[in-house]
Amino acid sequence: MPHIPLPEHLPGITGLLEYRLDTALPIRELTQILLRGESTLTPGERELIAALVSNRNQTRFCTAAHTKAADLLLGENETAWLVKQDYETAPVSEKMKALLAIAARAQNSGKDVTPEAVERARQAGATDREIHDTVLITALFCLYNKYVDGMATVTPSDPAYYQRLGERIVNGYLRPKDGFPVPQKT
Amino acid sequence: MPHIPLPEHLPGITGLLEYRLDTALPIRELTQILLRGESTLTPGERELIAALVSNRNQTRFCTAAHTKAADLLLGENETAWLVKQDYETAPVSEKMKALLAIAARAQNSGKDVTPEAVERARQAGATDREIHDTVLITALFCLYNKYVDGMATVTPSDPAYYQRLGERIVNGYLRPKDGFPVPQKT
Repeated sequence: MPHIPLPEHLPGITGLLEYRLDTALPIRELTQILLRGESTLTPGERELIAALVSNRNQTRFCTAAHTKAADLLLGENETAWLVKQDYETAPVSEKMKALLAIAARAQNSGKDVTPEAVERARQAGATDREIHDTVLITALFCLYNKYVDGMATVTPSDPAYYQRLGERIVNGYLRPKDGFPVPQKT
Repeated sequence: MPHIPLPEHLPGITGLLEYRLDTALPIRELTQILLRGESTLTPGERELIAALVSNRNQTRFCTAAHTKAADLLLGENETAWLVKQDYETAPVSEKMKALLAIAARAQNSGKDVTPEAVERARQAGATDREIHDTVLITALFCLYNKYVDGMATVTPSDPAYYQRLGERIVNGYLRPKDGFPVPQKT
């Protein structure tokens, strides 16, 4: 049961984003820019980072939602699952393995992101911006995971719920009425 | 040395907020709403939460900045220092002790925020909104701390730097040109 009264039909983060609309808006905007805005990482690759971080924080709601979003964006259900098992052997590029390794380190502590981990990513072709965005996506999903778990929100067990939620977030993190102008994926 | 090139005169979070202005804006807005917007917690009390969380994450830049902001808002240099040593014996209200205990738990893991910790806060007079905001402020500062440490930003050692930064953030987290309309403290 959540620590504060939240609408029963809005589990996980969804009820929290309705509880305080004023704080929800910049959270939604930051997520939209980082995960759907212009980037040399695909939206699917960015969702893999979100799914990995949420899984490492053991936040089941966010893990299920972003695994499903990654699945839908990648067009298959294998890669996200394998990334969560062991990104070093998952079917992703060497650059993505190095970025996921940075995300895994930052999830534990920002201080664990060593110059060697960054150099590995750079050797694999990662840009400064990709390294930056990997750390900030990780930090953002640690915010989400703490928010969702710290308020003891409800985690649905029905996979159909995450299918519907995944389909919604594939199209973005803003509510239509917020109408925030960020680049759309093409 | 930071993991990516950042302006030398902008240490800690300040260089990161200039590196990507588009992601910086919602981060600044969320902080302004949560720490300076309308609330039954004073800005000083909210800065105590930010300082405690940053200290527990061992992020020296954020700890020094928000300790100084709390000092300036509270008009003395003792309370923030004592909160970081042991909030249970610090000169703050029973409600603040209970909220700081929730923040300390959430800093470690959202799952550590137990019904008992929330009930203690409620018994001490905390509202749902205060409990919610304590968890979200904690989550936001975990984002900042991971971002600042994960990019290996520079931490100035000169106390005068944090005095100037503290004086700036007492007045808010937005750049004047962003002109975001949130309630101002009176």
